[in-house]
Parts: sequence; structure tokens; C-alpha cells
Amino acid sequence: MNYSPPTQEQVLAMRVCAGIEQLAESERFEAATPDMVEAIAEGIGQFAAGEWAPLNRVGDLEGAKLENGVVRLPDGYKEAYDHYVEQGWNSIDGPAAYGGQGLPFTLSCNVLENLGAANMAFNLLPMLSVGSIEALEAHGSQEQKDRYLPKLVSGAWSGTMNLTEPQAGSDVGALRTTAHPIADGEHASKWRIKGQKIYITWGDHELAENIVHLVLARTPDAPEGSRGISLFVVPKYHVKDDGSLGPRNDLRAVSLEHKLGINASPTCVMSYGDNDECIGELVGAENRGLAAMFTMMNNARINVGNQGVQIGERALQQASGYAAERVQSARAGGADKSPVAIVEHPDVRRMLLRMRALTEGARALLYYTAGQVDRGTLGDAAAQARADLCVPMLKAWGTDIGVEVASIGVQVHGGMGFVEETGAAQHYRDARIAPIYEGTNGIQAADLVTRKLGMESGEVLFGLMQEIVRDAGEESTLADLAKACVETGRWMVSEASLDDRLAGSVPFTAMCAVAVAGWQLVRQREALAQEGTGFANRKRATVRFFLNRIAPEASGLSASAKAGAEDLYSLETDTLLG
Amino acid sequence: MNYSPPTQEQVLAMRVCAGIEQLAESERFEAATPDMVEAIAEGIGQFAAGEWAPLNRVGDLEGAKLENGVVRLPDGYKEAYDHYVEQGWNSIDGPAAYGGQGLPFTLSCNVLENLGAANMAFNLLPMLSVGSIEALEAHGSQEQKDRYLPKLVSGAWSGTMNLTEPQAGSDVGALRTTAHPIADGEHASKWRIKGQKIYITWGDHELAENIVHLVLARTPDAPEGSRGISLFVVPKYHVKDDGSLGPRNDLRAVSLEHKLGINASPTCVMSYGDNDECIGELVGAENRGLAAMFTMMNNARINVGNQGVQIGERALQQASGYAAERVQSARAGGADKSPVAIVEHPDVRRMLLRMRALTEGARALLYYTAGQVDRGTLGDAAAQARADLCVPMLKAWGTDIGVEVASIGVQVHGGMGFVEETGAAQHYRDARIAPIYEGTNGIQAADLVTRKLGMESGEVLFGLMQEIVRDAGEESTLADLAKACVETGRWMVSEASLDDRLAGSVPFTAMCAVAVAGWQLVRQREALAQEGTGFANRKRATVRFFLNRIAPEASGLSASAKAGAEDLYSLETDTLLG
Repeated sequence: MNYSPPTQEQVLAMRVCAGIEQLAESERFEAATPDMVEAIAEGIGQFAAGEWAPLNRVGDLEGAKLENGVVRLPDGYKEAYDHYVEQGWNSIDGPAAYGGQGLPFTLSCNVLENLGAANMAFNLLPMLSVGSIEALEAHGSQEQKDRYLPKLVSGAWSGTMNLTEPQAGSDVGALRTTAHPIADGEHASKWRIKGQKIYITWGDHELAENIVHLVLARTPDAPEGSRGISLFVVPKYHVKDDGSLGPRNDLRAVSLEHKLGINASPTCVMSYGDNDECIGELVGAENRGLAAMFTMMNNARINVGNQGVQIGERALQQASGYAAERVQSARAGGADKSPVAIVEHPDVRRMLLRMRALTEGARALLYYTAGQVDRGTLGDAAAQARADLCVPMLKAWGTDIGVEVASIGVQVHGGMGFVEETGAAQHYRDARIAPIYEGTNGIQAADLVTRKLGMESGEVLFGLMQEIVRDAGEESTLADLAKACVETGRWMVSEASLDDRLAGSVPFTAMCAVAVAGWQLVRQREALAQEGTGFANRKRATVRFFLNRIAPEASGLSASAKAGAEDLYSLETDTLLG
Repeated sequence: MNYSPPTQEQVLAMRVCAGIEQLAESERFEAATPDMVEAIAEGIGQFAAGEWAPLNRVGDLEGAKLENGVVRLPDGYKEAYDHYVEQGWNSIDGPAAYGGQGLPFTLSCNVLENLGAANMAFNLLPMLSVGSIEALEAHGSQEQKDRYLPKLVSGAWSGTMNLTEPQAGSDVGALRTTAHPIADGEHASKWRIKGQKIYITWGDHELAENIVHLVLARTPDAPEGSRGISLFVVPKYHVKDDGSLGPRNDLRAVSLEHKLGINASPTCVMSYGDNDECIGELVGAENRGLAAMFTMMNNARINVGNQGVQIGERALQQASGYAAERVQSARAGGADKSPVAIVEHPDVRRMLLRMRALTEGARALLYYTAGQVDRGTLGDAAAQARADLCVPMLKAWGTDIGVEVASIGVQVHGGMGFVEETGAAQHYRDARIAPIYEGTNGIQAADLVTRKLGMESGEVLFGLMQEIVRDAGEESTLADLAKACVETGRWMVSEASLDDRLAGSVPFTAMCAVAVAGWQLVRQREALAQEGTGFANRKRATVRFFLNRIAPEASGLSASAKAGAEDLYSLETDTLLG
């Protein structure tokens, strides 16, 4: 099944949910005219469908391979990446000072949405580079910026983020990789890096000329835990002062993980300093590495939430295509006994509409969040707070619905869904990573009920939900859900213990996300109120489905969200584990 | 992670939910004494854990392979199957007249539960044989029974069910395989079978001496559709009158599917009569094949629902083991800043309890249903009706929670869950087939809201739910859920169109299943009311979790169940598909 970019849906979401036309009224984003927005959405959609989507299945089948120390991708990946760089797609929202186009983050979300729907594993390559750009831009020295940013912004070089070690996953502070200062010689004032990192996405490959590794490590006498972590830039090939590449640094991919999915994305175990000759530079201040990582984490989490939209869209298209073609059984109770395409059967139709409603809802939440990020960039503190609030909702719920939609997609196919050749199963496998990486969805939910709910004693959330209640008008299921979010949130802020909040955090996060998504879908519908097109009619049907079914289900999570921690801790751990 | 049989849970469920002690009061089942029940549960648990579980991972990695026309399993499978047969585990509830032990179906469910939790793919071999035994026992001639049943009951031979063809999946009536009568000669009064069948589980292999294929086919001039289907028994090797094996029949496995999971189970494309020499015998009357298939379908659906329990249990054990060992981060808000095993964190604890509550709930529903089947066998028509009602709930919800629990299991592992070596990912892949085969869960839900809800104008369901309301006592979430089931059911019976019912069938089925499961969990808890053991305490905590969180979530499905079909059909199909 080919990927067919849902450009009209994307442009609607950018217009209504991100408010990109208002963004373009600012000097900073004045290039984001309606014409430019449509041109980008159409252009990247066509590029992704034409060049990246056809590589999705071979990437799954053959996968990335480590051969004699070199990571190999299937034929076609190198060329497809080159074309992506040549056409400038990597630089959409990159800083103008370093060759970027300086367009809104909203548009880079659209670029990633299309690339990831076409090929989720491949899309991780540009996704990870974004983090390197952000960290260097925010914390690097001018020399570091000049050295690395132009090539990273163009995509000629790629970037990685090196946090995790076997004993340090969600608890980054437990990491043990070391950095020792070099007093003199060729590398004076640089650092010698030594340690092993795991789960390094696109940690090595031959698609880009160089790879810029950002590595968290501990300097001598650093404080314990997360306050003793520093950030280093460690290039695969040393970069000379004239910008040309020097000799290879002492770092390598030791092995690749054998994974459930995203097989085209090399997930590397990286070793730094096997020969004590791995040289890096400190980025920002010593012991301030975690703050630097947090800089890029917010947008990275949005980009992972985006992956839920991507896999949802791709699974929906796959299932829609199958349901339109597969003929099986007559309509129940009908006079006509001839078999029909399965899309005509009520439960298959319900599944397809559910897939669509969840995917469009997640997309609405994605672009709403992206638009708030862009407003934050323009100095709107309230919008920045909204963005911060929505990021964990989007990352957690967006990726959860990605898994759910991919699973329904398998189900629509019946037995064919379980056969790998069909393609539906790949989405089900690929989707499963997104709730895990870039902070598990449990970590996201904890972020929401601790840091984010705590903003202004909860008023950032309550203000948002009250706006939803107001805009819901007569849509009682949406208003009821938003009220339930306020009620549960108030309980969390005023009565619940920290454990109680954490115990209810995951269902609460889903409730809030559905409320925001439903609200933005209603706004999309209203923007099309005067239109009688098929597109507008489909939007009305999708929104109706969301309000009739998905919003009430989310309200049904209230009891879980408010159940508290007591029933979780009534047992000794040994008894619980049996 | 090894499989550790949950014998105490299983015996409790057989005692309380299946009421196996009352069953043993009948002459038919008098052998099922408490000692015998415990001996079987302990024996099969140990056998499954010791001999079948160690083959689970190699079966996934190497899978079944078709080499030069022969289906090969990894080393160890043949021996493990031989031991299973030698020890008599295949014959637990087989008919005594043919060497079976004549024990309750409840106990055969326990045998399958242990074997399938140990090795889901392998367990499909005995599972499929059960169908052949049932069909031949119910519809075969005395000669056919004498010829096939002793070897099938012992497990020396295995059986398959051949329904599906490429154009005939859920719509079995569309099949095209033909059967032509043979007038004279060696095979006089037999039939010549010709056609291709797909998705034939364990369709070929070398583990048993012979394979007894039950094949649906059309005879010349048969009526169109499902009323023109006949059932044939087609052995891999002809069986001589003295019971010894003759020459090979003209049938073969053409290819194996490349699947998402259950890789050790050869899913065959079977070809019958390539050389026009495939000989079969009619089972039962001509054109009555579908009825014969339905004979075995009820119990087969229970056995698939059982697979949800199996994969849930295995995934729970895997995740529990990991959560107990993986140390990461200190308890949030605690004075002690040392890192703890992740089971101590609220959200991980919530995930583990959710996995447990869903699995134990599905097990309670499984054994309740099995007990009603056994009462039906003893002539209790009301119990048989209850069994018929519960089968689609168990098959649909049981397998859906199997997928959910396996997915949570991956999540508990974090990044390790996405790495295949860990084992959690295999459960996530294996689990996904169960909502599809043996009638998709959509088909199950349709069965519930049409045939099963229609029994006594809905009173079979309403009576059950009223009993649940009564027994719920002060457990308001359970009572509310059961009342919601009655309310929705009454709407379906009295007001809703057929499309409305089908549109709400899947959420309605889940609601009903959760109500019955919750009820049986409450009964388990009450049976342990006087006990202060760790086991009893854990049961109380699990039931509390189920009532606090899972029951209210299910009530949240009411709106979906009653949403009707209008919003599904408000769009033309082409517009819906975009």
C-alpha cells in the first residue's frame, strides 16, 4: 500500500489548530504565508510518498546491518537521504544564521509527519539531528555553532543523542561515562570521553558525511546524580578549522539491537574511547548537561508524539485500502444477498472511523501544541505554558493511539493482517517503540501531574479546560470530559498525595489529551461549517464519532485517575509479585 | 523468563468459577475429585513448564520451515510432543469409549491453559485436534469413529480444520473446494477432493504419525452459499481396515505463511487433489457441513479465549520478573534517595496490577464458561444457554486483553521490551492472532448481539446480569456496570435496528465480559474471605483494582455501545475512504 499524503487534513490542522496565519503576521515568521504553507505541505508530501515510502518495506525486511564495523542500509536509502538534503527539507525551521529557513516549528512538524508516515524508521535520522541542532544552538560556543550548525542544518551531517547506559535509562543521573580534561597538546582544553551508550538511534551509518554525537558524561569530581552530568559534542570524524573532515575519532558502533520494529533504524550500542583517544568538547557549562538535554527534550517529545499520528495515518490508509477491496459476506439483514466490500459492514466501518477519529484527533493535538511552541518563540509566555502542558499529553496519548490504530488496522485485515507480506503487521511492530522512547509514557504522565499541573497551582490546565468547556457549546460529551479533567486536576492539586497523583497519572493524561484533541477537532469542523465538500462532510462525521464515542470513553477513565495509590500499595511487593 | 504455572489461581478458578466440586457429584464426572483436579493442574503445569516452555523462544526464532515438501520444527518439538502423548495429557476430556478419560471440559481447559502459557504456538497442535475429535464424535459414522478417534484422542494422530479459502474467510459459504463421489473401485462410495485451503494451522508436520484433515467442500449440484457445504475427513495417510497406515493421500502443504507471531505453528496453504487422487469420506449428511463445523466451534472459541489468559499470564510473569530486578530511580518524594526496583514506582505497580487484574478476570470468565459447558453436557439447558452467551464474550474480550496485557508487558520493560532477546516482544506478536482467528472479534460481537442476545428475547443475558447485580452487593461499580449492560441490552432488543446493534456490538461485548469477569472475581474473593494468606491478600488487592478501575472504564463504553449506526453511515463510502 502506497502512502498518500493527507495534505488537506494537514493544512487544515496547521491553519486552525496551529493558527499559522496568525504566526505569519509576525516578522519572525512572515515567510510562512498561506502559499508557502501549502507549497511545503504538498512538496514534502510528494517527496515522502515518492522517495521514502517505497523504501519502508525493504527497510523492515532487510533492516540495518553492522558488517565489519560499518552500518549498512538497504539499497536506495543513501540516495533518498541525499535527495532529501539537496531539496532543503532538513532546514525548514533551522536557524537562518546557519543556513536554515527560519520557518515555524509547525512546518517542520509537517515535514516530519510526512516523512515518518512514509517511513517511520528512516525519519528517525532527521528527527535525531534536530536535537543536536537545538542543543548546540542554545548552549554551544560561537565556535561550536560555526563548526557544526551549517552542516547539521542542511542535513549533510546528522546528529545523535547519547543519554542511556545499561544502568541509566529513565534515571539519566545514574550514567557512568566519563570525560577527562586534556591539559595540553593537539587537543588542549578538549576532553577525553570514555564509556558505553545504548539505544543510540542512527548511532552510526554512511548516509551523512559526518555524525555529530552529543554525549552526556561525568567529569572528574562531578557531583553524584543528575547534577553532575555534562554535555559533550563528539564528532565521528574530527572537523578541521577550515571545516573539512579530519581523521576518525575513537568511537564506534559495537552492535545493533535486534528489535521488534523500526528495523531500518540502526539502534546502536556505541563505545567511546576504546583506545582512550575519543576527543570531545564541552557544550555549555560543566555539570549543566541535563539542563541542556531538557532544552531539546520538549520538541523531541512533540516529534515522537507526531510519530503516533504518522503510524496512525499510514495504518488507516492501509486498512482503508484493504476494506475497500476485500469483498466478504452480504450486508446483514439486507435484501441483497450479494457479498460487499467489508467497509460496508457496520463493525468494519466503526473500526475505520475509530482509526480516523483517533488519528485526526492526535494530529489536531500535535499542531495545536506546535502552534503554541511557535507562539512561545515569539515571546508569548502563556502560549509557552500551554505548549509545556500539552507536550506530555501529545507524547503519551499520541503514541498510545498510534499503537491502538495500528492494532485495529491489523484487525481490519483479518487473517491477512497477521501475514507479514500485507504490511499492516509492520505498522503494529513499528508503532510499539513510540510509547517507550524519549521518556516512557509513564514518565510523560508523571511530568504532567507533577511539574506541568503544578504550573500556577494548576491554573494553566484549568484555564485550558475551561476554554474547552466554553467552546464545546452544546457538545455535552466534550464539556463533560473537560469538566472531569478539572475536577480530577483539582483533586490532584488540593487533596491527593504525590503517590495518588502518580497512580492516576496515565489515565488522567489520556483524559486531558482527548479533551484537547476533541476541542481542536470541533474547531476544525467549525472552520469548515460553510463547506459542503466531501472533505467537510467527512470531517463532520469524524468529529461526530469522536464526540459520540471517544470522549465518553475518556470520561470513563475518571475513576481510574482518582482511584489513588492505596490499592497499589496494600500489598507487600513480594506478595504482589507472587 | 521461565513459565511458572499459577496452579493455585487455576484451582481456585476451577473450584469457584467452574464449580468443579459440584460437577464431580454427577456420575459422568465423578472422577473429577478434588485430589484429581489438583493432581492434573499440578502435573500439567510442571510438564508444560518443564518441557514445552523451554521450546518457546527457539520456536519463535527458527519457526516452522517447509523444506522439500516436509514441514520441520526446531529440535526438541518432536520429543516434547511424544512425551505429551505418552503421559496422556491429550485425552483428558476425550470420550471414554475411545480411550479418553472422560473428565470435564473444565480440566481440558486447564491443560490447554498451561500448555499455551508455556508455548502458545505449540499448543495450537493439540487445540486443533480437539475440533476433529468433536466433529467426528458428533457426526461421524461408527466406522469413522472406530478408525480415527482412538488415535486422535491419544494424540498419536493430530487433526486440522480446513475452512478458509482466499475468497472465503469470515464468509465460509463462499468456498469452492469440490468433492466428487466415486462410484466404484477401491474407493467406492468415497469422494475425490480438490481445492486449496489457506491458514491451515499445523496443516502439515512430522510430530504425529498421521494427520486427520477435516475439510469443507461442495458436492456437485450443492446449493449455493453456506447451505451447500459438506464435511469430509481426509487423512494424510490412508488408514487400512486393520488401523495401520497405507499410502500417502494426494494432499500437501504448498507453502507456509510468514507471520507476525506464533512462528512455531506452521500455518499452511494446503492443496488437495493436485493429481486428482485426493480421497476423503463424507462426515454426516451431505450439505450439512456447516452445522458440523458449528459443533466444534463453540469449544474452539473457548479455547482461543483461553489463549488470551495464557499470553496474559506469561506476559505478566515476564514483566513481574523484570520489574522486580530492574533498579531505576528513587521513589518520588521519598526521603531515601537510593534507587529502587521499578515495581516500587506507582505507575509500574499500576501496570502490573492491571495486567494481573485483566488476566485473572479473563481466567475467571474462562472457567465460568467452561463450567457452564460441563453443566450443559450433564443436561442443564439453562447452563448451556449461559455457556452459549459467554463464549463470544470470552473469545473477544479474552483475546483483546491478551493483546493489551502483552503490550503493557512490553511497556514495563521500557527499551528492553522492544529488544527481541528479552522475550516480551514475542508475547506482543504472538498475542495478536487470537482476536482474529476462530471468528474475528467482530464476528464474536455480532454473534452476541444477534443470536445470543436473541435467546429468550434477551432474558438469558438479563438474568445473568441481574444475578451479578444481586451478588455485587455494595460493589457499586460492578452493579452499575451490570445495570448498564441490561439497559444497553434492552435498547438493543427493543429499539435498535440490526445495524445499530452491530455498530455497538464490540463495546457492548466488552462491557458484558467485564461484568461477568468482575462478578466471578468477587466470588473468588469471597471464597477466600476467611484466609489471611498472601494468596488471599493478593486476590483482594487484584479484585479491588478490577472494581476500582476496570469496571468503571467498561461502563464508559456505554455511550459507544448505544451510539447507533447513524454516524457510521452518514457518509458515502467513497467519501469515508477519502
